[in-house]
Amino acid sequence: MQSQKFTLMLDSVRRLMRGGSTARALNVLRKGRPADVAQVLHELTDLDRKAVFAALSRSDTKLAAESLSELSLEEGVELLKTLEPERIAEVLQELPSDDATLFIAELPEDLRERLLDLMRIEASAEVQELLSFAEGTAGRIMTPDVFALKEDLTVAEAIAAIQDASRDVELVYYLYIVDDRNHLVGVSSLRQLLLVPPTTPLKKIMSTDVISVRTDTDQEEVAQIVARYDLLGVPVVDEENKLAGIITVDDVLDVIREEATEDIYALAGVRSEDSVLGPPLRSVRLRLPWLLVNLGTAVLAASVVHAFEATIEKVVVLAALQSIVAGMGGNAAAQTLAVIVRGLALGEVTWENGRRVLYKEVLVGVINGLANGLVAAAIVWIWFGFSSKMILIGAIIAAALVINLIIAAVAGTVIPLTFKRLNADPALASTVFVTTCTDVGGFLSFLGLATLLLRFLI
Amino acid sequence: MQSQKFTLMLDSVRRLMRGGSTARALNVLRKGRPADVAQVLHELTDLDRKAVFAALSRSDTKLAAESLSELSLEEGVELLKTLEPERIAEVLQELPSDDATLFIAELPEDLRERLLDLMRIEASAEVQELLSFAEGTAGRIMTPDVFALKEDLTVAEAIAAIQDASRDVELVYYLYIVDDRNHLVGVSSLRQLLLVPPTTPLKKIMSTDVISVRTDTDQEEVAQIVARYDLLGVPVVDEENKLAGIITVDDVLDVIREEATEDIYALAGVRSEDSVLGPPLRSVRLRLPWLLVNLGTAVLAASVVHAFEATIEKVVVLAALQSIVAGMGGNAAAQTLAVIVRGLALGEVTWENGRRVLYKEVLVGVINGLANGLVAAAIVWIWFGFSSKMILIGAIIAAALVINLIIAAVAGTVIPLTFKRLNADPALASTVFVTTCTDVGGFLSFLGLATLLLRFLI
Repeated sequence: MQSQKFTLMLDSVRRLMRGGSTARALNVLRKGRPADVAQVLHELTDLDRKAVFAALSRSDTKLAAESLSELSLEEGVELLKTLEPERIAEVLQELPSDDATLFIAELPEDLRERLLDLMRIEASAEVQELLSFAEGTAGRIMTPDVFALKEDLTVAEAIAAIQDASRDVELVYYLYIVDDRNHLVGVSSLRQLLLVPPTTPLKKIMSTDVISVRTDTDQEEVAQIVARYDLLGVPVVDEENKLAGIITVDDVLDVIREEATEDIYALAGVRSEDSVLGPPLRSVRLRLPWLLVNLGTAVLAASVVHAFEATIEKVVVLAALQSIVAGMGGNAAAQTLAVIVRGLALGEVTWENGRRVLYKEVLVGVINGLANGLVAAAIVWIWFGFSSKMILIGAIIAAALVINLIIAAVAGTVIPLTFKRLNADPALASTVFVTTCTDVGGFLSFLGLATLLLRFLI
Repeated sequence: MQSQKFTLMLDSVRRLMRGGSTARALNVLRKGRPADVAQVLHELTDLDRKAVFAALSRSDTKLAAESLSELSLEEGVELLKTLEPERIAEVLQELPSDDATLFIAELPEDLRERLLDLMRIEASAEVQELLSFAEGTAGRIMTPDVFALKEDLTVAEAIAAIQDASRDVELVYYLYIVDDRNHLVGVSSLRQLLLVPPTTPLKKIMSTDVISVRTDTDQEEVAQIVARYDLLGVPVVDEENKLAGIITVDDVLDVIREEATEDIYALAGVRSEDSVLGPPLRSVRLRLPWLLVNLGTAVLAASVVHAFEATIEKVVVLAALQSIVAGMGGNAAAQTLAVIVRGLALGEVTWENGRRVLYKEVLVGVINGLANGLVAAAIVWIWFGFSSKMILIGAIIAAALVINLIIAAVAGTVIPLTFKRLNADPALASTVFVTTCTDVGGFLSFLGLATLLLRFLI
């Protein structure tokens, strides 16, 4: 149902833009939710997208702002850049300051200064406060205008305060309660207020066991806490436990999706700014460096093979079989890496239990190495026949597979754990180092064993 | 702060269990939140975990149940299986029926029947209803005991109903409003009720534009809708628009994490039942089949090289260089696959815009192929010198890289899109097919070109 309505909306906007009726296209859009408007913008051609957004920002700044924050960050920033600075400021000050900050942080330094001057003082001050926290921390993604109640209120007074609150505060299910110096002291809920007599002091009914995060808590940890305790939002406090803001579950959801995308991309050597519909040259710019690094490691692996060319010249079938050992090491390492990187992201793997994880992965590697080694040897024997030379080559491939799958297990565990320990992204750099280990390890073990046993092979 | 308290708790439970004081360990645990108790269980040895959980299920069934639902599904199921059926039934009926259903669905058929008999009739009926929906649909993960208000109530009556509601219903930022035949007709919020006079009819203030999903909606689509519209929960209706249940954002969060893990694992050939701390033999069982499939494709690639052995025998340096082209194809394909698979999961890539995506990926492939080809040729020339033979081999490697990066782009886009179109998991099977294409394509293009030009190489 929703998607049918959406398709209708998209079709009529496209038709109207083709006919040059921007104003009527805007009328259609104004009937939609911000998320739908954003999706329409996303699907339009570059030219139409810019035209519609510019017109929308003039005629319905609020809807333009809300749609903007439903777009991906990069797409939003690109649209914003097509507007005049005055207009950008108008759009941004319609947004909650956490969303406005996201965009401003991505704009060029000089434009950023200009916008902070142009925006209303309160909006600008809030954005500047958020910008003062490091990227990826709770402080950067929180909403500072959190609705809090003083602990000395009665329930009746609290309900009155809630009725008076402007619709703009991110209103949640939880009611945070502070003392007269704004320290976070308790939490309650609207429903709880309705269950007790109106004269009850808040202090009596609030729960003092509040789960909170600090402004400098990593956003990935915030997401883990919210997911773990099934929260709808979490208060953010400063180092003195003063209430500084709130992070709601919809922001956490974005963090979780974003971090998952980052991990999936990083394991494959794709940067998170890349996207499926972005401009091709940006994708080239983002992917090419990774490919060139890999080219370097491929050349390194090739140089290992080059060192064994004398052996290959004598037993040329080795050239056909050598890639099996290296490739299988790469596959097994990819499995280990996926499990470790995901385990690190979900907080299941730590530096402390790393040794236990390593033992397990090595054990799995040994067993899988033996199994694959036996099958590979059997294939070689059936394929090339049971001459004593091919029996030995089958045995060599089996032994090399065991060795390389152990290398894969060790490298696939130790390398991401070490990066994490050094506060580097465990997904990003791991793949290339691990692949180097399994490529070099594969060629070295297979061709090395063959060279050691060369006199039995010729 | 939270993590310090947690470490203290874990340490004392460990110490008390070592001393054999299960009862005192339980006293410590009872001070924790279910998520913390679950984490303690997770960290204990197998033996202690079972002992603590069995004792907890006797002394505090509710806490045992709530902790259980914070464990991973597999860990929870394993713990449950160690209890008597009567005790399992007692634990499960303390859970919301959506959580109970998750566990029951994983238990053996005969035990499942037994449990449904042992559980209280209402609990058992709810679970049986949920089990009637297919796995992975909204119906399976919803909570059926949703709190709804009749549309003909006044605000005062609605507030009274909310005050009377048992604490067990999944509460309730949104208030769903139904007609006298239980059709979902509107939505409101507790705060909205407080802003109007008590005699106002609900009908007057409710919003009739309710976002809902159907019982047969895919859970991934539910997650996309909740994320897109920043909802705290979404009502689930049957085919007649009758309210059947609710899915809250914490369940959606679990779905999103689960699906992200599945994609990361699937791209690397790991099944989602695998986990970093599970038993090694299970990991072997789950990963070995994938490795054996890959062994098959590696042998296929080796047979391509085998067909060119006459060429390699004459120009043995080809053996060292051949893996570069195949490997780089694999790397480029992994990048494309990551972008496409993630784009499919987030709903950005569809069958409809697939052609546009394909053009882009091919263009990126051509440019990256040229860039890598030039660098690879330069490396070959510098490494082996500028003889006419090596100049030609450098040119061949460059051409083969362009060809193989185009193959990578096409395979990395078309294969997952096709799987998605056929309603198969685009992440799971794609990697192996795509790698086969780039391996075979790499060896075939490099060694094929070298064979065609062989008379210039010797």
